Amino acid sequence: MVALLHVHPSREPDLLEPDRLQLHPAIESSEYIDGFGNRCTRFVAQPGQIRLFNSTLIADSGMPDEVNENAREVPVGDVPSEYLCYLLNSRYCEVDRFSNIAFELFGHITPGWARVKAICGWVNWKVTFSYAHARPTKSALDVYTERIGVCRDFQHLAITFCRAMNIPARYATGYLGDIGVPVSGPMDFSAWFEAYLEGRWWTFDARHNAPRIGRVLMAVGRDASDVAITTSFAEANLKHFSVVTDEVRPDSVPAPEIAILQPDGE
Amino acid sequence: MVALLHVHPSREPDLLEPDRLQLHPAIESSEYIDGFGNRCTRFVAQPGQIRLFNSTLIADSGMPDEVNENAREVPVGDVPSEYLCYLLNSRYCEVDRFSNIAFELFGHITPGWARVKAICGWVNWKVTFSYAHARPTKSALDVYTERIGVCRDFQHLAITFCRAMNIPARYATGYLGDIGVPVSGPMDFSAWFEAYLEGRWWTFDARHNAPRIGRVLMAVGRDASDVAITTSFAEANLKHFSVVTDEVRPDSVPAPEIAILQPDGE
Amino acid sequence: MVALLHVHPSREPDLLEPDRLQLHPAIESSEYIDGFGNRCTRFVAQPGQIRLFNSTLIADSGMPDEVNENAREVPVGDVPSEYLCYLLNSRYCEVDRFSNIAFELFGHITPGWARVKAICGWVNWKVTFSYAHARPTKSALDVYTERIGVCRDFQHLAITFCRAMNIPARYATGYLGDIGVPVSGPMDFSAWFEAYLEGRWWTFDARHNAPRIGRVLMAVGRDASDVAITTSFAEANLKHFSVVTDEVRPDSVPAPEIAILQPDGE
Amino acid sequence: MVALLHVHPSREPDLLEPDRLQLHPAIESSEYIDGFGNRCTRFVAQPGQIRLFNSTLIADSGMPDEVNENAREVPVGDVPSEYLCYLLNSRYCEVDRFSNIAFELFGHITPGWARVKAICGWVNWKVTFSYAHARPTKSALDVYTERIGVCRDFQHLAITFCRAMNIPARYATGYLGDIGVPVSGPMDFSAWFEAYLEGRWWTFDARHNAPRIGRVLMAVGRDASDVAITTSFAEANLKHFSVVTDEVRPDSVPAPEIAILQPDGE
Repeated sequence: MVALLHVHPSREPDLLEPDRLQLHPAIESSEYIDGFGNRCTRFVAQPGQIRLFNSTLIADSGMPDEVNENAREVPVGDVPSEYLCYLLNSRYCEVDRFSNIAFELFGHITPGWARVKAICGWVNWKVTFSYAHARPTKSALDVYTERIGVCRDFQHLAITFCRAMNIPARYATGYLGDIGVPVSGPMDFSAWFEAYLEGRWWTFDARHNAPRIGRVLMAVGRDASDVAITTSFAEANLKHFSVVTDEVRPDSVPAPEIAILQPDGE
Repeated sequence: MVALLHVHPSREPDLLEPDRLQLHPAIESSEYIDGFGNRCTRFVAQPGQIRLFNSTLIADSGMPDEVNENAREVPVGDVPSEYLCYLLNSRYCEVDRFSNIAFELFGHITPGWARVKAICGWVNWKVTFSYAHARPTKSALDVYTERIGVCRDFQHLAITFCRAMNIPARYATGYLGDIGVPVSGPMDFSAWFEAYLEGRWWTFDARHNAPRIGRVLMAVGRDASDVAITTSFAEANLKHFSVVTDEVRPDSVPAPEIAILQPDGE
Repeated sequence: MVALLHVHPSREPDLLEPDRLQLHPAIESSEYIDGFGNRCTRFVAQPGQIRLFNSTLIADSGMPDEVNENAREVPVGDVPSEYLCYLLNSRYCEVDRFSNIAFELFGHITPGWARVKAICGWVNWKVTFSYAHARPTKSALDVYTERIGVCRDFQHLAITFCRAMNIPARYATGYLGDIGVPVSGPMDFSAWFEAYLEGRWWTFDARHNAPRIGRVLMAVGRDASDVAITTSFAEANLKHFSVVTDEVRPDSVPAPEIAILQPDGE
Repeated sequence: MVALLHVHPSREPDLLEPDRLQLHPAIESSEYIDGFGNRCTRFVAQPGQIRLFNSTLIADSGMPDEVNENAREVPVGDVPSEYLCYLLNSRYCEVDRFSNIAFELFGHITPGWARVKAICGWVNWKVTFSYAHARPTKSALDVYTERIGVCRDFQHLAITFCRAMNIPARYATGYLGDIGVPVSGPMDFSAWFEAYLEGRWWTFDARHNAPRIGRVLMAVGRDASDVAITTSFAEANLKHFSVVTDEVRPDSVPAPEIAILQPDGE
């Protein structure tokens, strides 16, 4: 079993408390960095119930997602080689089936930031959020035809549009508290995406389509299949699942970010 | 444009002549190692015709693919972290849709070498080879239902079965001359696959289903989408394509391996 | 809007009370027999809420589904022309993708009744019932790979297997009370299927896989898309839905079968 | 085996010579009218080669396809019940997946003739004709994403758009000689479609997108799966196939329309 339950290495310098995944019962586990640069914990679960728990505290700028309306597209020839994979098809992103559709919808938009924003705007406008319409096999093409889905479905469609327009785009997952926005019910991990413009990655979110405060990146990959919170190579049933992400103001009693996962082992 | 037209780094020690991709007209290109360990050449093609050419000479053991009927399966917990990706879904390999099917077909076979052989045998027996039925979107599930396809389709189905049985499997592409077998018409690059057993990768080939002599590995990946011979990020039409792979006996005049590709640039 | 909310013409002689669909508010409606022989009501709904209601009483033999273990397959050449459509692909039944799979699973079973029973047994054994895994686009191939679904999914897979073995099979929907079996919670319309053997249609049910008492046929078709209880050609939201099917013994106060549907009009 | 190799009953009054399907070797066959109103011949082929042949002469108005730019859409409530099936999903026409796409593309076009013309225009403009990209499983959604295909693919996409806009549309197949247009190579059966406007069916052709002279209708259905020229319920290989459709001017020696099909029996 592999768990992606750490903050992303890029955010490790911000950690104010250790970020250590706890397993109950305690079993041996090891950490490694996967091919996309994410820190993973792997372990062999025994039959029976197993509880995964993590809680930490992280410093955040308190600033909303950065915006740079002048960010330009990077010609494919200049995209760093390690990012070329973010231009290709992946499990949930059928880039090849979208080349005509994307060009028709976004071919006339100014390349660069404006085009990615247009993509987010279109997806956000056209797709309706509904937990009831989630399913693990839903691909970008399904989202495009059904126009309904959850967080990750919004991002998959936007990512696929970006790639079809030759803009590297990758899936991101992490914590996102309801900071500066109305509280929206029980928390979950959140998904957003990153687009590569002007020589670096920028955060976009086709679900919320507005800059947000307090994203804590956990993992990036080509799509949701690369950054599953847990990947199990045998049968495992998730019994209970709870995420709490909250703001701890400097002058208040610390109420740290907490992630609790309680899948059953095989 | 990215070209995978080098021998795999693992075979570089065997090279007797340089392995250098030539572009006509000459344009600047650079090499890098991709996330799967393959050597790639990338370049920006100008509009018009471009010719890719490579020719080299490599030493080969002259031995058929290694066989180890005692090779055991590696428990998922012991699979090296960098190989876990070869257990998951990929573009052409819908592992999650095959878990029941694979278990029904191969669950009763002795784990390890015998199981991978049974998989190759089943695919080889059930699928018919036909160039006329190739198409770029054909996935393992399509091969399973249609039972017809080319080289890569055979390997995709076998790989998917292996992964569904928790055996890491990866797609391999390279040169394979008609050495020791009847000559089979115009040459092409060949596809086979590797399965991870007993702590290392072993060559299998669901298309030929028999050990062969003289495979020269070029690239490995999760499936054909990772190891396309050329990947183009704009429109490109392949005008002509020719591969010659031949044996050069120590006492004969060298007639080296040759790869010629002539895609048009955008 | 079209509603299939009548008993099938073949059961009309058994009606002890009129079978009349009531609309509230009362709007003009008309009846017709569709291409599959089902009695339909069509009407134009005004915006706002509309309530469909029907209640009737029907005489039933009280006998379980007929069994004839000697029923033989009908050679395709002798299948009546109007039933040839029940051998072909339809929306949810990808017969062409199953020809190899069906032959591998059922090719060795004695043709006729035994083969259809083997198909029902396989589907019943391999597929798990789950309301949570229903979705309107689920096809027989999805059921085959996912092995989970509702009533109609079981029948779609069984129908597809039958057709792939050249046995005409059609989808059936109707009332099925919990008569002679434990009561199973809130009622719904039920789906089963019919196979054409020995010159007539026989009832099979891959979901329950046992003869049942008290089926009241409403409609038959190639698959669920032909016999939707209601088909709406504009947006309509089903607000409430209730079905009561119960046994009225000759000596008891009549408590008739009741179907209540309350979709909202556009 | 079932063959659809007659002119459509609606054109029978125009026949100047008998329209009789000949089988070699001569075997017993019978005719019937299928559920869509087409005249079919069915027969049981013995193993070995079988030759189907038909040749007839038909009177044609010599006028191009009728045009009525004022033809209005028929409200769904007024569509005759027997045509409601031409509003629904069928094997190659995933109407439900197109509701959003169709509305975005054609929602702003004047309903009626102009909208169907806009649909034909869009399909004709966006889809490229290519025999090399035909495949029997290609659906309207595939055509929409791939933008390449043959005759029937054009019509399937147009039909699906029409239905998604609540315009009944059905697939039509028949003879279409190169009359009044440049000769276009070896002949084949042709596909077009009909849309229901102003109380009747009108001919449209998303492939040619221009009125043509000399269409001879053979069969209509929901899509190509309903009107296969031949449907075989066992293995059959088509060895040779030839269609000649030509104009016979009143003053010339008759050179009748000829259809030759030479599939092998099982």
